[in-house]
Amino acid sequence: MKTLNVDLGERSYPIYIGQSLLQQPALLTKHIQNRQVMIVSNETIAPLYLDNVIDMLSGFEVHQIILPDGEQYKNLDILNRIFSALLSENCDRSVTLIALGGGVVGDMTGFAAASYQRGVSFIQIPTTLLSQVDSSVGGKTGVNHELGKNMIGAFHQPQCVIADTDTLNTLDDKQLAAGVAEVIKYALLGDKPFMDWLEKNMSNLLARDPQSLAYAIERSCQDKADIVAADEKESGKRALLNLGHTFGHAIENAMGYGNWLHGEAVAAGMVMAGDLSQRMGWISTAEQERAVKLIQSANLPTIPPQEMTTEQFLDLMKRDKKTLNGNIRLVLLEALGQAIITDNYNQTELEQTLDSFLNMA
Amino acid sequence: MKTLNVDLGERSYPIYIGQSLLQQPALLTKHIQNRQVMIVSNETIAPLYLDNVIDMLSGFEVHQIILPDGEQYKNLDILNRIFSALLSENCDRSVTLIALGGGVVGDMTGFAAASYQRGVSFIQIPTTLLSQVDSSVGGKTGVNHELGKNMIGAFHQPQCVIADTDTLNTLDDKQLAAGVAEVIKYALLGDKPFMDWLEKNMSNLLARDPQSLAYAIERSCQDKADIVAADEKESGKRALLNLGHTFGHAIENAMGYGNWLHGEAVAAGMVMAGDLSQRMGWISTAEQERAVKLIQSANLPTIPPQEMTTEQFLDLMKRDKKTLNGNIRLVLLEALGQAIITDNYNQTELEQTLDSFLNMA
Repeated sequence: MKTLNVDLGERSYPIYIGQSLLQQPALLTKHIQNRQVMIVSNETIAPLYLDNVIDMLSGFEVHQIILPDGEQYKNLDILNRIFSALLSENCDRSVTLIALGGGVVGDMTGFAAASYQRGVSFIQIPTTLLSQVDSSVGGKTGVNHELGKNMIGAFHQPQCVIADTDTLNTLDDKQLAAGVAEVIKYALLGDKPFMDWLEKNMSNLLARDPQSLAYAIERSCQDKADIVAADEKESGKRALLNLGHTFGHAIENAMGYGNWLHGEAVAAGMVMAGDLSQRMGWISTAEQERAVKLIQSANLPTIPPQEMTTEQFLDLMKRDKKTLNGNIRLVLLEALGQAIITDNYNQTELEQTLDSFLNMA
Repeated sequence: MKTLNVDLGERSYPIYIGQSLLQQPALLTKHIQNRQVMIVSNETIAPLYLDNVIDMLSGFEVHQIILPDGEQYKNLDILNRIFSALLSENCDRSVTLIALGGGVVGDMTGFAAASYQRGVSFIQIPTTLLSQVDSSVGGKTGVNHELGKNMIGAFHQPQCVIADTDTLNTLDDKQLAAGVAEVIKYALLGDKPFMDWLEKNMSNLLARDPQSLAYAIERSCQDKADIVAADEKESGKRALLNLGHTFGHAIENAMGYGNWLHGEAVAAGMVMAGDLSQRMGWISTAEQERAVKLIQSANLPTIPPQEMTTEQFLDLMKRDKKTLNGNIRLVLLEALGQAIITDNYNQTELEQTLDSFLNMA
């Protein structure tokens, strides 16, 4: 097992990464302050791992709430079910929430913990590659609004994250690939040696080799933790993590949440950000091709849905929370492994990128 | 004008108290960081003061959202209307929310600001005595849940609070008295000299004498600010502010939010807390009578609704967020002007207090 410490002063917490971690109750229980626990999971994950987690919690007062599965349920109405469960069970301010599931469960549980009685503790047990490398690190929690993704939320750090690679064996290939998209993101935005590693090890990753998975998770979490530790509240450097996301959110938003997986939308978004970076003269054609090839090797989409239009993209991107004073700030690549946040690009070039990707038939 | 600084390190903010403050645009505008502003008000207050506040904001991009008036609308559904308005108007992370109204508007606007894009700035313009002395100080924001009051929320400090005593001229007598209940609370829990002052000046306060109002607001805010500065996240001393509130919340909850005003419920709750304190042998019969007389002099209720039962009180009090591990912690009076937080009382004595107040016919 690897232990990675996210250094945030008094809000620091460990991420445990490895096999068979759900067979080690002490990993979990040492982070629970009091006797009340509420496990939040979903209809897909609960049948697989809920009993296991309950077994880890002998001696505690354990409650559970099972949510429907899917990004389309990441909203205030479903969030309110968590509050109802907490109140019905008379959970007080010493309760610890445990998020057992993917990013949606993690984001909602974290926001419920941030807001219940103005803040209680929570623990993440992410069961998808995406949530293990992404949403379990950094303290971002929240829900979607019908007018925009992740528009309502809080920064709230967990007590610990337990990333058991065994849980990835129950993940379907599409979900696994979506997680790999975020792994590739860390390589592209700031870790060139990791890009080399990924090119050599992609087939092992997709075959769920435990060692390769653990390495990719650890490296991604470390890359993200370094960025988050430098910029907890996303005023500057942290925005680099949004590489591909402004394009990606527009895709998810246009297609309806859940129809394109987040990682798939980000994959196409990263290709589009690379294309614009190339038009700006920053990365070369060869570098862009190398990025596209890596993304393709993970069986991820490299073009957006063809039913979308340039106007739709521009409109949706303007709504993205990374806009300041109405200008669309984007994360672009100055080089492979070196991202910047900028609004220093030509609107015409952005439109050319969009046009080129939306008229491919 | 008095300026009172709430000292919370980098989250410190000023409270401006006095007459004609809404005629001084700079008081407001110097605390707005960027050009976008969203005023949140309600159907009662907007017709009275919205145009005034808009006039103060010339040069800004000003949006508005008018909520229905009443505690029964302080919930996630109505909160979501604020998010919808912000998103529809393309408000970004630099937006400043302005709460124009009483405690409900302040609490909801504050929570919307805490949660919109994971946190934006807000300013309070409280227009009731209650919100001027209570909810505008301390950073508590949130909404109610059908199973409990203020169960969902965040700690989020405003950029400033503008308490213009002129706005109290449009308040009805019942609302004014409800505000006086919280003023009396500060005297009872920790400020004996203020109790003496209130006994001498109650008629001036109820007659809305501007000097008396400004003094009572300043003194209450100072008392609260001192407690909040010592304990921002309510781990200890801050709980003293809940004098009368555990009883009071049970009343509000049982009667349906909005049927008993918060201040009225707290008034009856303080009398009940005093009664239990007397049964414990802490305050004398004479002291309890003095407290009851002061509360009566403000035309506030001194007994709970007679349709409630002891069992109902106990059940609702157990749900209050101040319970830890299932024990009901209460704020009681060791002496007039000296409150403590304790579970060191006999359950039988609590039931005797409840029985004595619920069989008065």
